[in-house]
Amino acid sequence: MEVLSVLNLGEFAQIFSKMGMFPVFDLAYYIVSILYLKYEPGSVEVSRRSPVASWLCAMLYCFGSYIVADMMLGSSPIDYFQHNSHILLASAVWYLIFYCPLNLFYKCVAFMPVKLVLVALKEVVRARKIAAGVHHAHHAYHHGFFIMVIIGYVKGSGVALISNFEQLLRGVWRPETNEILNMSFPTKASLYGAILFTLQETHWLPVSKSTLLLIFTLLMATTKVVMTARHSHGSPFSLVESWVCFLLFGSPLGGSEDNHHHHAPAVAPASPLKSKEELSEGTRKRKVKKAE
Amino acid sequence: MEVLSVLNLGEFAQIFSKMGMFPVFDLAYYIVSILYLKYEPGSVEVSRRSPVASWLCAMLYCFGSYIVADMMLGSSPIDYFQHNSHILLASAVWYLIFYCPLNLFYKCVAFMPVKLVLVALKEVVRARKIAAGVHHAHHAYHHGFFIMVIIGYVKGSGVALISNFEQLLRGVWRPETNEILNMSFPTKASLYGAILFTLQETHWLPVSKSTLLLIFTLLMATTKVVMTARHSHGSPFSLVESWVCFLLFGSPLGGSEDNHHHHAPAVAPASPLKSKEELSEGTRKRKVKKAE
Amino acid sequence: MEVLSVLNLGEFAQIFSKMGMFPVFDLAYYIVSILYLKYEPGSVEVSRRSPVASWLCAMLYCFGSYIVADMMLGSSPIDYFQHNSHILLASAVWYLIFYCPLNLFYKCVAFMPVKLVLVALKEVVRARKIAAGVHHAHHAYHHGFFIMVIIGYVKGSGVALISNFEQLLRGVWRPETNEILNMSFPTKASLYGAILFTLQETHWLPVSKSTLLLIFTLLMATTKVVMTARHSHGSPFSLVESWVCFLLFGSPLGGSEDNHHHHAPAVAPASPLKSKEELSEGTRKRKVKKAE
Repeated sequence: MEVLSVLNLGEFAQIFSKMGMFPVFDLAYYIVSILYLKYEPGSVEVSRRSPVASWLCAMLYCFGSYIVADMMLGSSPIDYFQHNSHILLASAVWYLIFYCPLNLFYKCVAFMPVKLVLVALKEVVRARKIAAGVHHAHHAYHHGFFIMVIIGYVKGSGVALISNFEQLLRGVWRPETNEILNMSFPTKASLYGAILFTLQETHWLPVSKSTLLLIFTLLMATTKVVMTARHSHGSPFSLVESWVCFLLFGSPLGGSEDNHHHHAPAVAPASPLKSKEELSEGTRKRKVKKAE
Repeated sequence: MEVLSVLNLGEFAQIFSKMGMFPVFDLAYYIVSILYLKYEPGSVEVSRRSPVASWLCAMLYCFGSYIVADMMLGSSPIDYFQHNSHILLASAVWYLIFYCPLNLFYKCVAFMPVKLVLVALKEVVRARKIAAGVHHAHHAYHHGFFIMVIIGYVKGSGVALISNFEQLLRGVWRPETNEILNMSFPTKASLYGAILFTLQETHWLPVSKSTLLLIFTLLMATTKVVMTARHSHGSPFSLVESWVCFLLFGSPLGGSEDNHHHHAPAVAPASPLKSKEELSEGTRKRKVKKAE
Repeated sequence: MEVLSVLNLGEFAQIFSKMGMFPVFDLAYYIVSILYLKYEPGSVEVSRRSPVASWLCAMLYCFGSYIVADMMLGSSPIDYFQHNSHILLASAVWYLIFYCPLNLFYKCVAFMPVKLVLVALKEVVRARKIAAGVHHAHHAYHHGFFIMVIIGYVKGSGVALISNFEQLLRGVWRPETNEILNMSFPTKASLYGAILFTLQETHWLPVSKSTLLLIFTLLMATTKVVMTARHSHGSPFSLVESWVCFLLFGSPLGGSEDNHHHHAPAVAPASPLKSKEELSEGTRKRKVKKAE
């Protein structure tokens, strides 16, 4: 903690942890989330056929974490919809991204430098949500370590955990996979973050909450910005995960499929070759452009 | 309001809005709901194979609106099952419709003049449910306009919104469509009704609740009776919807599929030609008869 | 009750009904439940690919009854996860069954004599859960007979009722069937048990709770042990069910499919011929062995 005090990080972390998220950060969160919805194959057609279904999907993308977390804690899943200003802001973003004349808004926010800033801001909100989720669960269940981790995880992952049902709303059904079977980077990071924040909340991790929040936020934002800039979907945890999985579960490199997907970036992180995921992202974008 | 006072409509609306629904109106609601369940392909086979699954489906058809609304508000989804008399009445209807010797009961209630009366009574209950749902949500979330609309919508639409999962209970899975992607008339009318009742509840609509309830009920009942009599599934809103969709979302006539389905009745409302849906309703009924 | 007093059964029932379930009985419950998870085709692969998904499935197998019952009563579905010791015990069992070197633990608990004892202990927990579920529902809804039966049923059946969604977590989707359409013996017995305990709780059944619990437990344990020893999946209720179904629903022998499945053991209970289910259980086990 010496270094932190020299850098005056503690005080900065305090200020940072008290900073309001609405409207700037939340706006970025909504924009990036609904951008990802538009990347989904078929979502543009759905927005033409049934605006109500498209709006509901957009709300799930923006507020999925609140919906699932509220459901998990036995409260009303639509409890967050009482915040009319948040809903209206997210609805405006949805409208602009899907129906703006000449597709202007989409082109602006999908422009790489703008998108990188928005992605960074989104990760700030995600880190904050995980911390808030763990804190909330700690308040409800004082010794429920598992509940804290689950709520933090759910708050960080958001719609990803219910993507099967979100897709069903759009008439798509892909039962052969889900976010738990094939975790993406944000979902994994949310899980690890939820564990860290739970350890902090129960005083097993000797660090102040604001400092942990600051460090975790910086880590998430940098990693996600680098990954977005490089169109990469590989997990930066893959090497450590492989070791831990081998040690704990005896399977080399975290399972056959995970291995195939996540090994590549770990072995050749500077390789200019496009992986399967990167190619598919390119294809996805082209499809979105065509569909307009 | 001058005209209303002349017609003494206000007082009549007051009396109407205080009229009890149990047992006559509720009975009609149960009969029509379970009748629609019997029209579903495969439901007769399910009633032979597994009476428990068939009974559960019937309960979802009768009480789906309460189950989903309670879930949405974070209460027990089976809360309504404490009303033993309602459950017993619905169970009796289910038993008579599916297992009555010689299929007598089914033949009686499916006889067109009887069915038209029952359908009209069902719409009375539906309008009442929407108003009650909005009022309940307003009580829980005083400024949650979105929550009021959602709860009213859910109370009006009932099982339709969870039809994918109701079908799953019977071993049928149709992920390519759902009630939000392709809204039927009652679902759409429930959405518009929920918006109207929310506007009334928040004093944006300068009309008394009982008057709005009366007008909405009359509108729903007449429309549904006419549609049932003419075996029509087209939406009477299609023309207005086309205009609004074109204005708001830039897509002509509310999307490619909606267009195809709903344009026909708007353009040629008196056409004697049977649409695809009407034919399929005929086929459905024939199948039900065969299955017995 | 004369006979009972002679046998001093009442007092023994009292002591039995107050006996704690943790840790011995609960441990047996977890072992048998996760054993059944390992029998499921593909679950070993899932445990290699995604330990998180495998752990979640194991938790659903162990605590599914609490999760569904809590959801039904409007509480937090992860409420039970506050009992850290139970979760840790179940997690340890999951780890040992799936990742123990040389598959030693699995071989021990799947060894028939050991398994029979564990199965008997599991049924003790199941009976207790049904009684507790009915009691809990009675506390919340004093006259909600249907709610009591539903909660008792759900507490007894556990993960079986949500097996479609548990399979989805593992990337498997079988919409054409579910536990309500094709009830297995434990699910059926849970339903009948829930009805019996509800009758007792509402004083329609003139017997003390502890005596009913003891008799029901003995019945369940013996039946399940015999069925496990004989690799049988036929229902011992099939004959009575056939009569009742014929009387009530007019369909001979409980429907076409049920008939085929459940008639065989009723007619030829001592037949040495292996039924379709028994064969498939053998195949399943062989597959599990191969996969390791």
